[in-house]
Amino acid sequence: MSALENRQFRLISRPVGMVKRSDFEFITVPAGEPGAGEVLVRVLYLSLDPAMRGWMNAGKSYVAPVGLGDVMRAGGVGRVVTSNDPTLAAGDLVVGITGIQDYVVSKAAGLRKIDPQVAPPPRYLGALGMTGLTAYFGLLDIGQPKEGETVVVSAAAGAVGAVVGQIAKIKGCRVIGIAGGAAKCSYIVDELGFDAAVDYKNEDVRKALARHCPKGIDIYFDNVGGEILETALSMLARRARIIICGAISQYNSTTGMVGPRNYMSLLVNHALMEGFVVFDYADRYPEGMKALAGWTIEGKLKAREDVVDGLETFPETLLKLFRGENFGKLVIKVAE
Amino acid sequence: MSALENRQFRLISRPVGMVKRSDFEFITVPAGEPGAGEVLVRVLYLSLDPAMRGWMNAGKSYVAPVGLGDVMRAGGVGRVVTSNDPTLAAGDLVVGITGIQDYVVSKAAGLRKIDPQVAPPPRYLGALGMTGLTAYFGLLDIGQPKEGETVVVSAAAGAVGAVVGQIAKIKGCRVIGIAGGAAKCSYIVDELGFDAAVDYKNEDVRKALARHCPKGIDIYFDNVGGEILETALSMLARRARIIICGAISQYNSTTGMVGPRNYMSLLVNHALMEGFVVFDYADRYPEGMKALAGWTIEGKLKAREDVVDGLETFPETLLKLFRGENFGKLVIKVAE
Repeated sequence: MSALENRQFRLISRPVGMVKRSDFEFITVPAGEPGAGEVLVRVLYLSLDPAMRGWMNAGKSYVAPVGLGDVMRAGGVGRVVTSNDPTLAAGDLVVGITGIQDYVVSKAAGLRKIDPQVAPPPRYLGALGMTGLTAYFGLLDIGQPKEGETVVVSAAAGAVGAVVGQIAKIKGCRVIGIAGGAAKCSYIVDELGFDAAVDYKNEDVRKALARHCPKGIDIYFDNVGGEILETALSMLARRARIIICGAISQYNSTTGMVGPRNYMSLLVNHALMEGFVVFDYADRYPEGMKALAGWTIEGKLKAREDVVDGLETFPETLLKLFRGENFGKLVIKVAE
Repeated sequence: MSALENRQFRLISRPVGMVKRSDFEFITVPAGEPGAGEVLVRVLYLSLDPAMRGWMNAGKSYVAPVGLGDVMRAGGVGRVVTSNDPTLAAGDLVVGITGIQDYVVSKAAGLRKIDPQVAPPPRYLGALGMTGLTAYFGLLDIGQPKEGETVVVSAAAGAVGAVVGQIAKIKGCRVIGIAGGAAKCSYIVDELGFDAAVDYKNEDVRKALARHCPKGIDIYFDNVGGEILETALSMLARRARIIICGAISQYNSTTGMVGPRNYMSLLVNHALMEGFVVFDYADRYPEGMKALAGWTIEGKLKAREDVVDGLETFPETLLKLFRGENFGKLVIKVAE
């Protein structure tokens, strides 16, 4: 087989503040050849996630940073081109860590087959992928929602937040989502069934939450950090749980992170704040996937993807996340 | 009976920053007369606690603020002078909320008899009182210490910290205490049996903790907040528990509280931070008291009190807490 051309984004400098195109090298190399137990995959869709910003930083975190000179790490959906493993065949659709590139050679064991009958392929990067699992385990394992409780989620129209709110509804909670702009707010209430939305761009979040949560907040699922975390802390119910899933308002700060000044609200309310990453639950992914797929088939779990065309747009498309411009799970479409 | 003279400190203004004598009125009034079910108590010892600073502020917290014009709230040990209740007799030693004054009229049901054979009366304001119970429930209920785990406690020579460390040792943990000055550090290691001490006044806390906690911190019991909380957050073990018991470094701030800037360490390490106040465990006080008294009798739980003479010294004596000048549980001796 003649070598396929593989375009890829390699990280060449650690960004300061917002990510720039010049932090990457965009080059074309021959696609690799799969060895025994490996497959060659044509990447079709790439997942863009706030966590990517952290992976670009040096220093210990829950995963190793992307090395300078390495292909930028990303999850992706693709089609098997050549397989040297009996578990996968050419033509199979798979999901896994592909990197920001056209083709990847991967161990077959690192990929999972997906079923396009259940949902379109990009959904396996969102509500039926790592972001759906993030919502599932964070809300259910840490939050332990009980029927009738009040759940607040930030970045509520985002990939994780939208699933958090819908699962909380399935569990019988009252759900208030915080999102930016009228379109996202009407989406989460009218299409996803949230009980209320707070438009942080156009209303006073504190007043709106106070109105929607007269008995305080039992569960706050935090994707944003900063002022909204402090606002939620200021109106906790007793024994409240704050789930720390992200802090997108802080990731590009050049002056350092801001901590919640009123964290002593945890003491006053006997509340807890617990963090996690989805990888902590790797041994329970099958359980989560089964539940998410089941709710999708039943029509209880809806989702939308914000699909941007073209691998070459990666650095600029990523910025949509930090500007709150994406509407639904942000993915890049690399090929049909 | 002729009216006894009762000196008392009444809060007359809400302190800004450090407490001042002028925030109180120090007056003499006749001691009250107990009604049915009530007793008149001669106060002998008064408990001085960091939490008092919070009670002086306006605004909702876990207890109502002390009202302007009201006697300053405090726990105390006293002797019953006159009893109009069958459960207590003149001469009984009792502990309860007495306020900063010489005499108090109290419902008998609000007081608990103490046994001076188990320990001297002031201990019932410390290791055998609310501070001991604070250590007991915070460490055991929230921290859930397991044998072999590494426990770090701040304000380790203080009333709560000293008990936390000793209970952690009883539970088979490695215990590192953070305290200010050589005398306190040698006390917690040589007399209380901690495994190591970090002298925050004379060494780099980060380097010292890194040396003493090579596998990270499993439990951090926080009494101080501020920089030391951030340092502990920076070296958590996976699934660590941070117990938020106090933030004495912050209580007198006039520029607002500082939050832990690196709270995302909770996410990276799947760790939790949970707050509490001892009153949350009121229905389990008998269990806690039994354990604390048992360990005291067995010689496993030691304590010391820092006894200052004279009710009239209250405002200045309280400041010793915020300057870290007390050594052991700070109490005022009001009478023999």
